[in-house]
Amino acid sequence: MSEIRKDIFDNSWVIFSTNRGDRPNDYLNGNVNCPFCPGHEMETPQEIISIKNKKGKWTIRVVPNRYPAVSKNNLINDSRIEGIYNALSAYGVHEVVIESEKHNALFEEMEIEKIEEILKIYAFRYKELYKVPGVKYVMVFKNVGMNAGASLRHPHSQIIALPLVPKSVISELNSSKKFFKRKNKCLFCEIIEQEKKFKKRVVYENKNFMVFCPFSSKFCYETWIIPKNHFSDFQNFRDYKQLAEIMKITMKALKRTFSDLSYNMIIHSSPKENSAFYHWHIEILPKLANMAGFEWGSGFYINIVEPEKAAEKLKKNIII
Amino acid sequence: MSEIRKDIFDNSWVIFSTNRGDRPNDYLNGNVNCPFCPGHEMETPQEIISIKNKKGKWTIRVVPNRYPAVSKNNLINDSRIEGIYNALSAYGVHEVVIESEKHNALFEEMEIEKIEEILKIYAFRYKELYKVPGVKYVMVFKNVGMNAGASLRHPHSQIIALPLVPKSVISELNSSKKFFKRKNKCLFCEIIEQEKKFKKRVVYENKNFMVFCPFSSKFCYETWIIPKNHFSDFQNFRDYKQLAEIMKITMKALKRTFSDLSYNMIIHSSPKENSAFYHWHIEILPKLANMAGFEWGSGFYINIVEPEKAAEKLKKNIII
Repeated sequence: MSEIRKDIFDNSWVIFSTNRGDRPNDYLNGNVNCPFCPGHEMETPQEIISIKNKKGKWTIRVVPNRYPAVSKNNLINDSRIEGIYNALSAYGVHEVVIESEKHNALFEEMEIEKIEEILKIYAFRYKELYKVPGVKYVMVFKNVGMNAGASLRHPHSQIIALPLVPKSVISELNSSKKFFKRKNKCLFCEIIEQEKKFKKRVVYENKNFMVFCPFSSKFCYETWIIPKNHFSDFQNFRDYKQLAEIMKITMKALKRTFSDLSYNMIIHSSPKENSAFYHWHIEILPKLANMAGFEWGSGFYINIVEPEKAAEKLKKNIII
Repeated sequence: MSEIRKDIFDNSWVIFSTNRGDRPNDYLNGNVNCPFCPGHEMETPQEIISIKNKKGKWTIRVVPNRYPAVSKNNLINDSRIEGIYNALSAYGVHEVVIESEKHNALFEEMEIEKIEEILKIYAFRYKELYKVPGVKYVMVFKNVGMNAGASLRHPHSQIIALPLVPKSVISELNSSKKFFKRKNKCLFCEIIEQEKKFKKRVVYENKNFMVFCPFSSKFCYETWIIPKNHFSDFQNFRDYKQLAEIMKITMKALKRTFSDLSYNMIIHSSPKENSAFYHWHIEILPKLANMAGFEWGSGFYINIVEPEKAAEKLKKNIII
């Protein structure tokens, strides 16, 4: 069975995907025979696109996820009702971006041009996946380290195309719309302005981007990268070079602060519809502590590091 | 600094509590000299109440949390505005229930009378804490195992009294109110009825309680214990003996299924106000996998075990 069930109390949905339990795991089972290394191309489903070097060897590969959470094999727009409950078919697309041919490559050590290539691949897949019928939202994310839920060490990110706009994005959109109606201004643009004025949570800036630790960071050392000028979606943004630069600088500062950092990186970009109010950004969520009963029971968070302190420490570890 | 900051996008709040970083940790630092064991009473703040055996030795102790997330030392009803942001003083009460004098005692191995005593202590503290001015919500929870965010192994639970009703409880209340308006019936009572009819997600029942795996379980083997008759709050409920029985049976079945289970246990009880629509229950959330970027980015969940399968397996492991 593969379906997406609606929670009856909040606006969250749960994807039931039993095949994901079969994934190989570097962290739990020792280093597995890596399916993302060169020579193992047959262990992934058929490649969607790849970048090759002058010798004709691939350096980035995009492949379908072998253990997808959602799939085009499931019916589009199919739903079922069970009394008071609702479920949707787990329709969608789930891809993996193998970011390097090198098993031990680290994002923060890559050449800026290489990071730029990865970002351009994301943008290309965003555009392609938004053309797929029934897709309402495309999300790019990256899990690094066991605490962040990663199962393989080989550097990779994931792209998932969903038949629904996620709860977090809807929250951001609704708050942004409400703010726009009152102030005739983008809420994210206002945040940027306020952070610039307050200064203490800003980690770094280049011409087009700002890096900061948000006022209500849910995670210790939560760090956002945001374009300074209003722009709603990642895929039509152009300056991936400056983004690559600032991503490298930010990740290096985080890794200098915590040598064996587990983290999630998520691109928050506008849905296809209602995009004008949205302002795309990247959230980097370090996993330095485990969520506990308080968080799961309340939907609130406890954070032991103030963002002002986190920003101060990260700023000291910025090296250009 | 100790304050509760409002998230600008959703209705969650983040408690900033820097002293919690100083907690001793059995899991990370090897077995610490346990502050909850007999002989170490001076290492906890002054005892609030305890249960003693015939020899006059304590068997359950309630003490203030030495590393509180919220505290009465912080100002009541104090708030601050920083431009578009809002923060509240981290006012409240945070207590620990040391459930046993035995360092290695396991909840599922305790005598039913012992579990009943613990539950009655919860009820007593609920009542006392709701008398504290400014307290809007009292929550009891328990973290077992490192993956569930526990820091000490000695069996204990926590009670937190907050100046706000948590987001999850508000979601449940609002859905329940809405359902009541439409159907003149409690949503939780309807769930119980539907689960009884559907049967496949019910793990166990006794006269007054039902154990089931919810339709949209966010966690593998998520298990709820709910009173069959409508009752809004935990602390005025009377039949703690039957609850103790069914909690023991349920935890034993979970532990027979997963020997080294990390889990969170949360009592969801009604807030002081608006209680009529609410139906108290206990959520047991096993931590068999780490949340990853998908979950943190979307507010959605991926679960690899259907609740019907989980219930089937747990049912086989029920021993009375």
